[in-house]
Amino acid sequence: MELLLGKETALKIKEQVKNEVDKLEVKPKYVVLINKNDSSSIGYVNMQRKNATSLGIEFESIEMDDSEEQYIETIERLNNDKSVTAVMLTRPLFKGADEKKIISHLSSLKDVDAMSSASLGELFVGSSDYLAPCTAEAIMKLIKAYNIELKGKDVLVVGRSISVGRPVALMLLEENATVTIAHSRTSDLNDKLKNYDVIVAAVGKAHLIDASLCKEDAIIIDAGIHYLEDGSIVGDVKPSDKVKAISKVPGGVGTITSAVLMENIMKLYHKQRG
Amino acid sequence: MELLLGKETALKIKEQVKNEVDKLEVKPKYVVLINKNDSSSIGYVNMQRKNATSLGIEFESIEMDDSEEQYIETIERLNNDKSVTAVMLTRPLFKGADEKKIISHLSSLKDVDAMSSASLGELFVGSSDYLAPCTAEAIMKLIKAYNIELKGKDVLVVGRSISVGRPVALMLLEENATVTIAHSRTSDLNDKLKNYDVIVAAVGKAHLIDASLCKEDAIIIDAGIHYLEDGSIVGDVKPSDKVKAISKVPGGVGTITSAVLMENIMKLYHKQRG
Repeated sequence: MELLLGKETALKIKEQVKNEVDKLEVKPKYVVLINKNDSSSIGYVNMQRKNATSLGIEFESIEMDDSEEQYIETIERLNNDKSVTAVMLTRPLFKGADEKKIISHLSSLKDVDAMSSASLGELFVGSSDYLAPCTAEAIMKLIKAYNIELKGKDVLVVGRSISVGRPVALMLLEENATVTIAHSRTSDLNDKLKNYDVIVAAVGKAHLIDASLCKEDAIIIDAGIHYLEDGSIVGDVKPSDKVKAISKVPGGVGTITSAVLMENIMKLYHKQRG
Repeated sequence: MELLLGKETALKIKEQVKNEVDKLEVKPKYVVLINKNDSSSIGYVNMQRKNATSLGIEFESIEMDDSEEQYIETIERLNNDKSVTAVMLTRPLFKGADEKKIISHLSSLKDVDAMSSASLGELFVGSSDYLAPCTAEAIMKLIKAYNIELKGKDVLVVGRSISVGRPVALMLLEENATVTIAHSRTSDLNDKLKNYDVIVAAVGKAHLIDASLCKEDAIIIDAGIHYLEDGSIVGDVKPSDKVKAISKVPGGVGTITSAVLMENIMKLYHKQRG
């Protein structure tokens, strides 16, 4: 069983972004809105700060109250601020927040993780310059890095979230895979696993997918990440030596995701100017 | 084998629309842009005119030149015209037209067939008040009219178009089906047919899907319509007595589609006032 690693791909993306930024007179600026009660996102935001600044991208985080009005006002201000390239909201926003409503105010020209219906609509219709949600794009980049054939292959996506399962299903379809989307209500998932050439796990449950039930030449991409009480970090997949390849958790999709975020900042930078 | 018919559902929808319109002081107005060289759509537009006026909906068709500028100017004018409720563009627009660009100008508040990325993005994220493309919605209405169970069922959508295959796949997913999207590059489609409880054919090729290869209790929804040289009208499915049910062509999905269009006009009417 081969372990699929994200490191090399992530480094390449970051190097390319750094080279691009170095040549720019006006540097990109990335702004994250983080709710002041959301301690779970602090580590994630700090990593993004480190990533961005190491590439020459300006970084700002704004602490938000539990206020729809404040979120919308801040988003509108950032939409109109020409010095701001990219905006991300850490989620959940706050208890009782109407996330769809708040996010709908974010311009698709600044929506770095393609959270809004406007951004996802562009992906849905296959616009030439759409941005994908970072995790979905990272999955596709890992697949391409290992030259995994998709055309005519039977691909199972487990998970139907707006941020991963649905967009990656459409992206796999664009690559001419035959795509099945399974989820918590799917019957006999374990029996079905053996029917697929490639399995993308994005279900958000530790070890839900037993790789030993997949066929021997199956390739498994694990987009999950779970921190267990014993200190170990695992994905949505319970690995098995029997399959052809599985992406590493951590070290696979997630590693590429943070680099894709930087790449998306650059895509927005050019879209805004072009 | 049971034939699934659309007539009753279509009549119910139209009756409901008529009752609603009767009570309105300001009547809805529906505008169709038809290219002056597009003779293939004339029959379709005339049927819509008849449908709309019979329900009390005002109807206007505008003949368009092969001009991107004229399309965009007309769309912008209709977006801003408060007397206009709903707008449809017959396709193809014209040879060489940048359809995505032109359609992107249409406000999602007037986009009666959910052609634009903005409208489809709302469907993608599952907004509470999204409009679906009429054919996709008609498929779902036929399924519901016959109380066809979807939850946990294995559903195959054949076809990945932006107007039918992709949206209906997402709508089936919302109903907790496990959804597979197949297409022209799918390998061994005939071998796969037997694995599905429900099959939605939206591939645009006459008789491509051989119903005799499906399992005995399969239910087949045929969203295709083809006018053959011998004068006969057929769908994407080659029917077989062996399966449980197949929708009739013509008389199935298509019959409901034109009623859904009228219903979508009313949905837009309320959205604009809501």
